[in-house]
Amino acid sequence: MSQTTSLEQDLYPSRIQDRPQWIPRHDPVVYGTVDDGPLDQGQLHFYEKNGYLLFESLFSAGEVERMREALRQAWNAYKTSDEDYVVREPNSDTIRSIFRVHKNNPVFREIAYDDRIVSRVRQILGSDVMIHQSRINYKSGFHGKEFYWHSDFETWHVEDGMPRMRALSVSIALEDNYPFNGPLMLIPGSHHVFISCVGKTPEAHYKTSLKKQMYGVPDEESLRRLVQEHGIDTALGNAGSVLFFDANIMHGSNGNITPFPRSNVFIVYNSVDNRLVQPFSGLERRPVYLAERDD
Amino acid sequence: MSQTTSLEQDLYPSRIQDRPQWIPRHDPVVYGTVDDGPLDQGQLHFYEKNGYLLFESLFSAGEVERMREALRQAWNAYKTSDEDYVVREPNSDTIRSIFRVHKNNPVFREIAYDDRIVSRVRQILGSDVMIHQSRINYKSGFHGKEFYWHSDFETWHVEDGMPRMRALSVSIALEDNYPFNGPLMLIPGSHHVFISCVGKTPEAHYKTSLKKQMYGVPDEESLRRLVQEHGIDTALGNAGSVLFFDANIMHGSNGNITPFPRSNVFIVYNSVDNRLVQPFSGLERRPVYLAERDD
Repeated sequence: MSQTTSLEQDLYPSRIQDRPQWIPRHDPVVYGTVDDGPLDQGQLHFYEKNGYLLFESLFSAGEVERMREALRQAWNAYKTSDEDYVVREPNSDTIRSIFRVHKNNPVFREIAYDDRIVSRVRQILGSDVMIHQSRINYKSGFHGKEFYWHSDFETWHVEDGMPRMRALSVSIALEDNYPFNGPLMLIPGSHHVFISCVGKTPEAHYKTSLKKQMYGVPDEESLRRLVQEHGIDTALGNAGSVLFFDANIMHGSNGNITPFPRSNVFIVYNSVDNRLVQPFSGLERRPVYLAERDD
Repeated sequence: MSQTTSLEQDLYPSRIQDRPQWIPRHDPVVYGTVDDGPLDQGQLHFYEKNGYLLFESLFSAGEVERMREALRQAWNAYKTSDEDYVVREPNSDTIRSIFRVHKNNPVFREIAYDDRIVSRVRQILGSDVMIHQSRINYKSGFHGKEFYWHSDFETWHVEDGMPRMRALSVSIALEDNYPFNGPLMLIPGSHHVFISCVGKTPEAHYKTSLKKQMYGVPDEESLRRLVQEHGIDTALGNAGSVLFFDANIMHGSNGNITPFPRSNVFIVYNSVDNRLVQPFSGLERRPVYLAERDD
């Protein structure tokens, strides 16, 4: 397959030029049809237009409690771990994320392959899918840090060699999201354009970027223009709600000084027809806990 | 008057003990009556109970534009100023606040003595009033930093020698507040209790505390309990809206990664029957741009 060669044409160049470029999306947003799964025409249309879909209660209260308990256990188990897939807060030992939970944790493995999620993902991506990355995140109360605006695809393309926009993320809320505890903000419609970032990626960028992003950061003028055009939507689902969002949608979240923590399960699905090639940065591949490869 | 001696009893000790104390408020919240000004019984009751009042459009669009223009001019005029009343962002030259604008700027002097504000303040405080502090604030888009939870009174009492809870703040929004651009959050009802803070105040604390507060910070357990009891209200007024809030209400704001800046005019009024004494910290007085004294 041409997509697995390293001679793939770079349709979405980024971190190369010294000025940001707006590149129209070359790929579809929705690959399947209403006959391919549980999403109806209205939902597919909403996803195509806005780049995300929020389901209020795809998981029951009991299932959410089971995931919360698994998250607490994982937090305790990895408290002093020096595994590289356990990522801590900047300047602190507090765990921020634990990666690869679809491989290492039976509860989250089950969730990652749950048909309520996978059937919808397959319908949107129009093919069989594979897991590109999974993690559990904990954004603490009082001191939760912001995540600046970014397109996941920009990173996955440049640093992981994901050739096309045929991937999406699923985020399962394990706590209620309020307007004031740093919920995910999305710029609806922003997934229709690829905004190239300025600056060259340094070696082993992921070691710091998971704590604080320095490269692959969109410029302020582009963000201002995107928000002027599209506004900002906020994902205010309760615990158990599930958000599906396109790999290229611009999103981020503010910090959180309230006592209400936010934790979630985060799984990225990629189409089997969109397998990773060599990173377009020309740098080494990132570790498998960030970008699974089956080759 | 006993209130101007330095032998004043310390009814609200803070930064002395090594565990936080909850001290019931010794002072009224509303000192005046419905006969003393424009606020009706419902508004006075709301303020007494919740500790704040929000007016959607006390100033016209034209007046707001005049203030915004004055703010822009002040920002330019003070760009390279080394006046101590011009406070910059941590690790940056960007101006965060300009103090004492009721003395140094004709537009904001007029606003500070505007009858729409002063009549309401006098009614709540039940006496003539004086200005304790004034400033204009600019919280930039994209990189606006959070303000952690605090009671203003705690600082004014410990560091400025404000003896009793008979003061309030007025904040005039010069931009629209959204849920996602770091609006002011208040814990309604929290003004009925004084939560003493832990840790001794260092000399000249104000030089760093205006950028990042390190002392006079309430403990997480108290904040958690306050929010459990009272919840969180968010001041989502449009440009031109005016918020009145009690000196002792617990408040703070999250950071802001959106392109929408937030700027406001902030004026603190104190009752003439509550004049400052020596700081209860035993340390030197702070400069007049932080705490006006007419003695």
